Amino acid sequence: MSNSKILRIIPIGGLGEVGKNMTLYEYGKDALIVDAGLMFPENDMIGIDYIIPDFSEILKDKKDNIRGIIITHGHEDHTGAIQHLLDEVQAPIYATPLTCGLVEGKLNRNGLAGKADLRRVNAGDKIQLGAFSVELFHVSHSIPDAVGLGIETPAGLIVHTGDFKFDHTPVDNWPTDYAKLGEFAQRGVLALLSDSTNSTQPGWTKSERVIDAALDQVMEEAEGRVLVATFASLISRMQQVADAAQRHGRKIAFTGRSMVDNHKIASELGYLNIPDRLIVSLEKSLSMPDNQVVMMVTGSQGEPRSILGRLANGTNHKFDVREGDTIVLSSHPIPGNEESVYRTINNLFRRGANVIYESIAPVHVSGHASEEEIKLLFNLVRPKYLIPVHGELRMLKQAAKLGEMVGIPKENIAVVENGQVIEFVNGELRLGKRLPGGYIFVDGSGVGDVDQDIVHERDALSRNGVIMVRLDVDQRNGQLKGEPEITTRGFMLEEDFDSIHKGLKNRLRKTVKNANGSLEKDVLNTVKSYIFAETKRNPYIFVATNRN
Amino acid sequence: MSNSKILRIIPIGGLGEVGKNMTLYEYGKDALIVDAGLMFPENDMIGIDYIIPDFSEILKDKKDNIRGIIITHGHEDHTGAIQHLLDEVQAPIYATPLTCGLVEGKLNRNGLAGKADLRRVNAGDKIQLGAFSVELFHVSHSIPDAVGLGIETPAGLIVHTGDFKFDHTPVDNWPTDYAKLGEFAQRGVLALLSDSTNSTQPGWTKSERVIDAALDQVMEEAEGRVLVATFASLISRMQQVADAAQRHGRKIAFTGRSMVDNHKIASELGYLNIPDRLIVSLEKSLSMPDNQVVMMVTGSQGEPRSILGRLANGTNHKFDVREGDTIVLSSHPIPGNEESVYRTINNLFRRGANVIYESIAPVHVSGHASEEEIKLLFNLVRPKYLIPVHGELRMLKQAAKLGEMVGIPKENIAVVENGQVIEFVNGELRLGKRLPGGYIFVDGSGVGDVDQDIVHERDALSRNGVIMVRLDVDQRNGQLKGEPEITTRGFMLEEDFDSIHKGLKNRLRKTVKNANGSLEKDVLNTVKSYIFAETKRNPYIFVATNRN
Repeated sequence: MSNSKILRIIPIGGLGEVGKNMTLYEYGKDALIVDAGLMFPENDMIGIDYIIPDFSEILKDKKDNIRGIIITHGHEDHTGAIQHLLDEVQAPIYATPLTCGLVEGKLNRNGLAGKADLRRVNAGDKIQLGAFSVELFHVSHSIPDAVGLGIETPAGLIVHTGDFKFDHTPVDNWPTDYAKLGEFAQRGVLALLSDSTNSTQPGWTKSERVIDAALDQVMEEAEGRVLVATFASLISRMQQVADAAQRHGRKIAFTGRSMVDNHKIASELGYLNIPDRLIVSLEKSLSMPDNQVVMMVTGSQGEPRSILGRLANGTNHKFDVREGDTIVLSSHPIPGNEESVYRTINNLFRRGANVIYESIAPVHVSGHASEEEIKLLFNLVRPKYLIPVHGELRMLKQAAKLGEMVGIPKENIAVVENGQVIEFVNGELRLGKRLPGGYIFVDGSGVGDVDQDIVHERDALSRNGVIMVRLDVDQRNGQLKGEPEITTRGFMLEEDFDSIHKGLKNRLRKTVKNANGSLEKDVLNTVKSYIFAETKRNPYIFVATNRN
Repeated sequence: MSNSKILRIIPIGGLGEVGKNMTLYEYGKDALIVDAGLMFPENDMIGIDYIIPDFSEILKDKKDNIRGIIITHGHEDHTGAIQHLLDEVQAPIYATPLTCGLVEGKLNRNGLAGKADLRRVNAGDKIQLGAFSVELFHVSHSIPDAVGLGIETPAGLIVHTGDFKFDHTPVDNWPTDYAKLGEFAQRGVLALLSDSTNSTQPGWTKSERVIDAALDQVMEEAEGRVLVATFASLISRMQQVADAAQRHGRKIAFTGRSMVDNHKIASELGYLNIPDRLIVSLEKSLSMPDNQVVMMVTGSQGEPRSILGRLANGTNHKFDVREGDTIVLSSHPIPGNEESVYRTINNLFRRGANVIYESIAPVHVSGHASEEEIKLLFNLVRPKYLIPVHGELRMLKQAAKLGEMVGIPKENIAVVENGQVIEFVNGELRLGKRLPGGYIFVDGSGVGDVDQDIVHERDALSRNGVIMVRLDVDQRNGQLKGEPEITTRGFMLEEDFDSIHKGLKNRLRKTVKNANGSLEKDVLNTVKSYIFAETKRNPYIFVATNRN
C-alpha cells in the first residue's frame, strides 16, 4: 500500500487531554492542522505559566505540506499556541469572524500584527485544502461563532466536532446545525472525532437561558451594586448580563483588560448587541447610585492578579468591595483551581459582599455536551468509527462506553492518546506508531526553557529549601579559620535553626581537621548527614570552601 | 456582670474551616474541649504535611480549668491534633469505643501509649464535667459510633452536632437520634452549633445503602479482580464491600497499613461483622482465580505513596494492576486533590484496568447533611440562636440563609470565624473579642518550625530556582582570578543557560575590576540585574567571593 492512499489523523495535545489543543490530518502530500491551543499547568508544575503541545517532532517532515490551519473557536485552549505554531509553519489560518478577531488580538499582543495570513470564513463555507474539502458547520458552545468540521478526504468523510453542546435555546439563537450532521450521516461518515469533556456528566447540559432567570433574581434582590465575574471570552454571558441590567434599570461597566478588549472586538463584529446608552465607564459607575450599577469583571478563576482576585485581597486600584455588593461568579472552577476560587469567595464574603456562585444558584452552565447529547450526536452522525477526543483518558473511556450503548461496535471505537497515529486504509481503521510528542512548558517570557527535571528540582527546593555553607581554611595548618557562614532559605525558622547551627559548626570543625583530599565533598556530606539527622530533611546544599 | 455568669464558646480551627477541628466551652472556672483535629494543607502550602489549630494562646490561662476533652468521632480532622493538645493540657479524653480505639492507635504510633487518660463512653451517656452536663447522642456519619453533644450549662442548653447526616438506612442500622433532638427542643435550646459542610448541596445526601446496589453491579460485571479504594476510616464501607464480596462468591483481602489496622480495631470492638472464612491474606489473594478476589486498598485521594497511587505508577511492591482488574474509588476527592485523583484514575485506565468512580456510578456518598437535612435539623431543634460551624465562610453564610428560611430571625444567627469569642449572658448572645489563633504548620517530624515566611520563601524558590556564584579575587591586583563558578538549581535548562553564562562572566569580570568596598554586594547586584534583564526572572542568588 503506497503511502499516498492512507489517511492519517494524529491527535496532539498538552498534558492529559487527548487531541484537545491540536489535530493533524494528512493524506499523501497534503496536511491540515485543526486548532493550536495551550493548556494550563497542574498544581505541581510549579512556576509554569502555560503549556503548549510539543508539535515540532510531529510536524518535522510535513512543514511544507500544511495547506491550512483551521481554528474552530476563540478559546485559549484552541488558539493559545498559534504564535508558537507560526514560528514553525507557514500556512493560512482559517477561522470565523469572531475567532479571527480574537486571534488577531492575540497576535497583535505578541508582536505578530499583520504577519499572519488570516482568512475569514463562515459556518456553511467549504474550503478546499489540497486533498481535503472542509465544510464548516455551526456548533453551540460557550463562545459564539464556533464551528465543527466535515472533512471530506479521498479515504472518506471525517466529522470533527470541536467543542460543542446541543443548546436548543442559545443566547445567540443559533443552535448546532443538526441538519448538517444528518446530511453527513446520509453521505456516510467514516469516523467521528467527538468532544468528550462532559462524557461523565449525566443528562443534558442546561441551556444558557436558565442563567437569565438566575440573573434576574440576583438583580431583583441586590440592594447595592452587582458585580459579575466570568471568562472574558464568554461573549454571550456579556450579552445576558447586559440584558438583565437593562431589565432592572441598571447601567453596565466593563473592567479588566481582556474583558474590555473582547467586548470591543465582539461589538465591532456584531456579536454583541448592547445599546451604547446602557454602557458606562468604570469611573462613571463608581459615582452612580449603587443600585443602578452592574460591573463585569475578570477573575472568575480566583487568579490573584485579576480584578476579582484583587478585590478579594483588598489590593484593587480603582475601587473596593462595598458592604451590600452582590458578586456573581458566572463560571465553573477549572480543575485544580477549586481552592483559589473558594478562597476568593470566602474573602469576598469577609469583605461584606454577598457572593452568588454555581453551587448555590444556576448562574453558570457548561459549554460542553453531556451524556445524552453525546449519545444524540452518535445517533445523528452514525459513524463507522468513533474516536473520542477532547478529554482525559477517563473521559474518553466513558465516551467509548456511550458509543457502545448506542450500538457502535466496540472494535470500531479507538481510544487513543496524544501522538498516536490513526490510519485509514481501504475504509478500515488501524493504529500506526505513536509519535514522540508530549508538551513544552512556557515559563514567563521563555518557551521551552524549563523541562521536567527543572520542575522536579523546583519541587525539591519548595519542599526542603536550600542551605549555603561557606568556610575558610587556613592553608598553613588546615584548620578552620573563623566561623563557618551558614545561610538558609525556605528551610526552617531562624530561632529553631539556632540550636542546630552550633552543633553543625562543631561538626564542620572536625570535618575540616580530618579532611584529606576532597574538602568540599567532605563538608557537603557532613552538612547533609547532620541536617538530615537533626531535622529529617534534605534541603539542597551549596558548599563554598576556600583555602587561604 | 461577673465573669462567672457568662458562658463562652470559642470555635477553633485550622485554615478556613470554622470550628472544624476544635471548640472550647467555658463557664466560670470550668472549661471543656470538643475535638482536637488536624487539617490538610492547601496546594500552595508547599512542603507542609499537615496543619493544626494554634490553640496555645487561647488555652493559655485555662489549662487548669479543662475538665475534659470530648472527641465526637474518629476522623483525622477531629482527632489528629490530640497528641499536640496533650502536650499542653492534662485532662481526661472521653470518646465512644470505636473512637477510643482509633485514638489509642494514634497515640501508640506517636509513642504516647498508656500516657493518656482515655475514657470510654457511649451514646446516651451523660458526663458531668464541672458546670457542664454533657449528654452524648448518636449521629449518622461516614464512620460508625459518631456522637453529637447536648451540653447543659448554667446559661442554657447548647446542642453541638459534630459531623452528621440523617441517613435513614445507614449500614449499621443506627440512624441519628431524632427523638433526643426533639427532647432537646422541648427542653429549650439556647444555641445550636451545626455542621455546615454540605450547606451548598441541594436536597438530601443519599443513603449509604445506594452503594450496595452499585457494588453489586460492579462485582456482577467484573471478570477479573475487584479492588476497592476508600478511606481507611470508612469502616462501614469495609462492611459493605465484604457483604458484596460474599454475595458474589469472592474473598476479601485488606492491604495498606491503616486499612489493616482499622479493620483489626473495628473488628475487635464489634463494629465489623465479617466472617473469618471470607477474609484472605494479600498473599493468598494473589494466587486465587481473579474472579474470586476483592481487595480493599488505601489511596482513594491519589496519594502517590499509597497502594493505589503506587499501582497507578507501577511502583507497588507486592502486586501490579492486571488487565481485566476493576478498580473502584469509593470516595470523593478532598478539595485540592482533584488533579491527583483524576491523574491516578487515568493512569489506572492506562494500565488496563476498568475504573469506576463517583462521577460515573454511585459508589460513594457524602458523610454530611445536605440542605434539606440541615433545615430538618433546625426545625427539630428549634434553637434560639444558630451558630453554623464546620465549614468555610461561604458554607456558613449559606447555612445562615437556610436558618432564615426556616424562620430563625436573622439577628439570632451568628456567622463567626475561628477565635471569635461568643458569649451568652442572661440568655442573650453577644460577640466578645476575637482571640489570636490561626494555625501551625507541621512539616515532616517538626511541629511549628515552618511559618508563613518560610512558605513564601519556598514558593519563591519553586518559581524561580536558585543560583550560586563563587569567585576568587586576586588580592594583589583586585582582578578576577580564574573563572567565576556558577551553579543553578531549578532555574533553567543547562543548554539555555550556556548563552547567558558567558555574558554573565564578562559582566562579573568588570564588576570585580570596578568594585570598591562591598564586593559581594556589587557581585550580587550584577548577577541579579543581569539575570533579570536576560530572563525576566528573579531566582534566589547566593554569592561567595574570596580574596586570596
